[in-house]
Amino acid sequence: MTVSDTQLANAIRALSMDAVQAANSGHPGMPMGMADVATVLFKDYVKFDPTQPKWADRDRFVLSAGHGSMLIYSLLNLTGYARPTMDDIRNFRQLSSPCAGHPENFELAGVEATTGPLGSGLATAVGMAIAERHLHAEYGDDLVDHRTWVIAGDGCLMEGINHEAIGLAGHLNLSRLIVLWDDNKITIDGAVDLSSNEDVLARYAATGWHVVSCDGHDVADVRRAIDEALADPRPSLIACATKIGYGAPNKAGTSGVHGSALGEAEVAAAREFLGWAAEPFVVPADIDAAWKAIGTKGRDVRTAWEGRLAKASEGAEFSRRMAGELPAGFSLETYIDSLIANPQKVATRKASELALGAINDLLPETVGGSADLTGSNNTKTKSTGPLTRDDYSGRYVYYGIREFGMACAMNGMALHGGVIPYGGTFLVFSDYMRAGIRLAALQEQRVIHVLTHDSIGLGEDGPTHQPIEHVMSMRMIPNLDVYRPADIVETAECWELALKDATGPSVLALTRQNLPQLRLEKAENLSAKGAYRLVAATADRQVVLLATGSEVEIAVATAKALEEQGIGADVVSMPSWAHFDAQDAAYKADILPAGVLRASIEAGTTFGWERYTGIEGLRFGIDSFGASAPAEVLYDHFGLTAAKIAPQIKAALGA
Amino acid sequence: MTVSDTQLANAIRALSMDAVQAANSGHPGMPMGMADVATVLFKDYVKFDPTQPKWADRDRFVLSAGHGSMLIYSLLNLTGYARPTMDDIRNFRQLSSPCAGHPENFELAGVEATTGPLGSGLATAVGMAIAERHLHAEYGDDLVDHRTWVIAGDGCLMEGINHEAIGLAGHLNLSRLIVLWDDNKITIDGAVDLSSNEDVLARYAATGWHVVSCDGHDVADVRRAIDEALADPRPSLIACATKIGYGAPNKAGTSGVHGSALGEAEVAAAREFLGWAAEPFVVPADIDAAWKAIGTKGRDVRTAWEGRLAKASEGAEFSRRMAGELPAGFSLETYIDSLIANPQKVATRKASELALGAINDLLPETVGGSADLTGSNNTKTKSTGPLTRDDYSGRYVYYGIREFGMACAMNGMALHGGVIPYGGTFLVFSDYMRAGIRLAALQEQRVIHVLTHDSIGLGEDGPTHQPIEHVMSMRMIPNLDVYRPADIVETAECWELALKDATGPSVLALTRQNLPQLRLEKAENLSAKGAYRLVAATADRQVVLLATGSEVEIAVATAKALEEQGIGADVVSMPSWAHFDAQDAAYKADILPAGVLRASIEAGTTFGWERYTGIEGLRFGIDSFGASAPAEVLYDHFGLTAAKIAPQIKAALGA
Repeated sequence: MTVSDTQLANAIRALSMDAVQAANSGHPGMPMGMADVATVLFKDYVKFDPTQPKWADRDRFVLSAGHGSMLIYSLLNLTGYARPTMDDIRNFRQLSSPCAGHPENFELAGVEATTGPLGSGLATAVGMAIAERHLHAEYGDDLVDHRTWVIAGDGCLMEGINHEAIGLAGHLNLSRLIVLWDDNKITIDGAVDLSSNEDVLARYAATGWHVVSCDGHDVADVRRAIDEALADPRPSLIACATKIGYGAPNKAGTSGVHGSALGEAEVAAAREFLGWAAEPFVVPADIDAAWKAIGTKGRDVRTAWEGRLAKASEGAEFSRRMAGELPAGFSLETYIDSLIANPQKVATRKASELALGAINDLLPETVGGSADLTGSNNTKTKSTGPLTRDDYSGRYVYYGIREFGMACAMNGMALHGGVIPYGGTFLVFSDYMRAGIRLAALQEQRVIHVLTHDSIGLGEDGPTHQPIEHVMSMRMIPNLDVYRPADIVETAECWELALKDATGPSVLALTRQNLPQLRLEKAENLSAKGAYRLVAATADRQVVLLATGSEVEIAVATAKALEEQGIGADVVSMPSWAHFDAQDAAYKADILPAGVLRASIEAGTTFGWERYTGIEGLRFGIDSFGASAPAEVLYDHFGLTAAKIAPQIKAALGA
Repeated sequence: MTVSDTQLANAIRALSMDAVQAANSGHPGMPMGMADVATVLFKDYVKFDPTQPKWADRDRFVLSAGHGSMLIYSLLNLTGYARPTMDDIRNFRQLSSPCAGHPENFELAGVEATTGPLGSGLATAVGMAIAERHLHAEYGDDLVDHRTWVIAGDGCLMEGINHEAIGLAGHLNLSRLIVLWDDNKITIDGAVDLSSNEDVLARYAATGWHVVSCDGHDVADVRRAIDEALADPRPSLIACATKIGYGAPNKAGTSGVHGSALGEAEVAAAREFLGWAAEPFVVPADIDAAWKAIGTKGRDVRTAWEGRLAKASEGAEFSRRMAGELPAGFSLETYIDSLIANPQKVATRKASELALGAINDLLPETVGGSADLTGSNNTKTKSTGPLTRDDYSGRYVYYGIREFGMACAMNGMALHGGVIPYGGTFLVFSDYMRAGIRLAALQEQRVIHVLTHDSIGLGEDGPTHQPIEHVMSMRMIPNLDVYRPADIVETAECWELALKDATGPSVLALTRQNLPQLRLEKAENLSAKGAYRLVAATADRQVVLLATGSEVEIAVATAKALEEQGIGADVVSMPSWAHFDAQDAAYKADILPAGVLRASIEAGTTFGWERYTGIEGLRFGIDSFGASAPAEVLYDHFGLTAAKIAPQIKAALGA
């Protein structure tokens, strides 16, 4: 007897409600409501091969409504991925299981993106779709020809990030992107119309999307809608009218089924309603076999693709890029040598542009961009032409005034593979996209944020634009490398480090104002140590000055003023706290010798500098909001000049 | 001779281009482009009285496109506000001037909101419009009957926050809100269509807005559009087609005029083009007189209103609320006494709900809400019915899944005055609205964020939902009070402190999980000290344990384990770092005695705790992302139990 789509879908429903019930924690409503849609999608549309979850030309599927994680865990298990096993699912939301509360790309190979923070998944999928079209433009149909599918909920659509994501997708006309909206009219607080009366389809249409509706429980109607979406040359939104928690006869259609276990009684009633007689975590053999067959349909497609890859002249380069490996021997040494030979005084944002000039020539996989601050962030170089709806081969994205959308799109590009994304905005606007930066760190993705105008040094734009706590507050995000280089050489070194770290994102905090070149001798990549002695005391060492970025110049001047008074002062440049913390004890003790006064200088909050200065050290910085005035006036106003700092150090020394 | 609207507008243009030229920094394009629209607006529509800039029933005008600050500085000066003076404008963007790069409410009484971070101004205006309708519902036409006007640019509309803001405004049908969009088709990177091809009007219409277009340089057409907007019962978007930098004959209409001085030659050419013969910073007498006359048209309206206020039975209460003063003798002492009498073990989110029960009865000015997590944030109490489009008298806003929109709306409500807004979401989603929280701090507004699920203690939802760096990263935002109370009593104390501080925002970081009541004796508000000794060592004191929130219970258990081994241990509960840092040296030395080992325990990053433990102290926390498992499993997994901590302290003591 043929297994019906409804029976296939009921397997998802049963696993979802049973896993949530066993954990007594989780969200059964979404997977039960969207089970029919997901079944149609995986049975007839998604291109995938469970035996090769990282096959480069697979379709990407992103569960943007990540709380409904049992939907994807069910699909991966049923279609035959190695993980999650049924034991993994039994242990849903337990420490031992890769089936975490929300889907995590680092736990399961079949999970394309870590989702849960609402709206971010869809925005990430936009980046995947950009990467697909870009690589398609470079490598052609034979190697790159896949789609990006998203299941999103009302939360994903109501979040501000959605506006940025769909605006970008519409602008770039990402026709390979199809979003299936779980239009169940329920949010956590109750009916959607408690907080929104938006015509969602009209809004999507206004940004250049194709829109279509269907009955999410009528598999034929779902197919009709998807077929229509596939035929349309625009990105598509499919509104799937569903009943949240479909299958739970007494609770379906209510917010109560969104985020709580159904309870034993309702689980039993759902079994009755669905005609599902099997024990928890058991899938009847015929249904399981039908699902497994679905999991094999992509195998021939994949092997055929592998055949084309093997024959393609650019196959090795494509594979290198998809593996995230830099070209053998990649180094900025030659470029840095040229800097040593011809010292320059430039802003580090300009230094970054110069470094990118070299990088973008060496690395065809970089794709740059800016959130409408191209000329200020200095993110565009001559080798990166615009990536547009008419020419996806370009390597520069005009992201528009969409910082969070940019950050998530870059996450998606990195997750897709084959490209290394970098993008710029002002450092102060890192607040707009902080959740996106954090998701890059959590997902272990190489995304590089070029954040310029990194202090009061930006001058007249004033406190709304002057970062105070931003650099420090990002230093504490796990797995995020925050660099604040002091000159043109350190900027190149930090770029090199950011590029060579394939396991996490980086932030480059860069100045608007010019800085002298402080590094004048050829050396290894000193920034790799995180902190190093830039200037050694000549007189008897009484103080170690710790500084980053534009304040290293001030530390050097302060040291000079002290030395002139017979007070020996080291200057330590500290572009990366994380790298310094990773050094061995001997190195740290050499840089920060015991018993010597330490003073930090950074044009931002002093909060946190106690880590290196100790409570007893001195900390020069800014613990209030900034002000509007020319940069040099502000540095004086906030006491960040050698003339103001040196006497305080002298006083602290009792000298 | 009558002064024409164009001549009035040219005064704005001249002041704007001259001030930017003098500063050699700033944005002439927007004020020059929108000068005609602004002239019509202030001449014929905005209700204001420069002699009483804080008149409660004035219209609110928000320059969301804050970079065009010279527009509002010009308007305020020309219409006769005491500040800015012409000297202030001459010193545009200098340290001595209140004419900062972007408009700041704390610098000029006539500036309603600090703007510049794009999109935030419009979102703030939504909150002002909510407050207006709410107070209107409470006090009627006689006292509250005004509009909120916004000038916004393409950046404001492209940002994600715009979607949240207009969705909320459309849902609440804020007909008193009118947005004038500077539709100049230019962004910093170039033409708008470099990054967007959205049909903005269709998008606004899709969210329940009235939309209309006009020629922004045809004053009659501008009037027609505004009149249409006033007649429509929905919030309105008026697309004003303008030429950026209008008046600069060679540069108008290009992105080059957006953010740079025109240059002497172009300023001269603009004078020629506009027929503006006056010297810089001089307004011809007839034009100045015409502007000053515009500034007097609201005086009679204001005095009439004052007459009504004087006669109104609720006049004193209205004035108290608008002044931001709490009712005389406001205190939670009675409520806290009841807690001491009947100790309870509850989550601090529940403790917050209980405190709010008392607060919302005592303070009619509170307006609560949640970003679709009402039942999780415990933000709704029986005295706060829903604020809806049909009944603005409600005191609870279903903000929807719009965290940033909520934060900015609350800023606007606080700026409007008459209400004290509080709103909830999960702590981890503070990242979504961080820019809004920062703007509350910068603007010195009493906005209270109820941020629940404040650690791995939320359990199974896993790392996407578990804050690690969030509490710490907010502690470093200037003028933001971050509270992490340890039990039901501290929660009430922290609420009291948050409410009594009218000069800045507060964050309450609250648990999902239950916590025992640790404070069992009647006392003053101990949280006001920031940190206090909860448990004093009985054996010889060898360690001071510092903890916050849910980890205070663990510190108490750790101290007990140590005491049982003869190791004296103080437990210091530290709900607010900022308050503790503000104590005198003697108090601090008593709480943190010199020469005694200190150990911090907090289920978040250890980054920053060196401030109190010193480098040599111990720091127990979590410096990685969290994991998905039941809370108690995670506390053990991350080593945050007395059983795991006590031995390490013992070892550090060599005991």
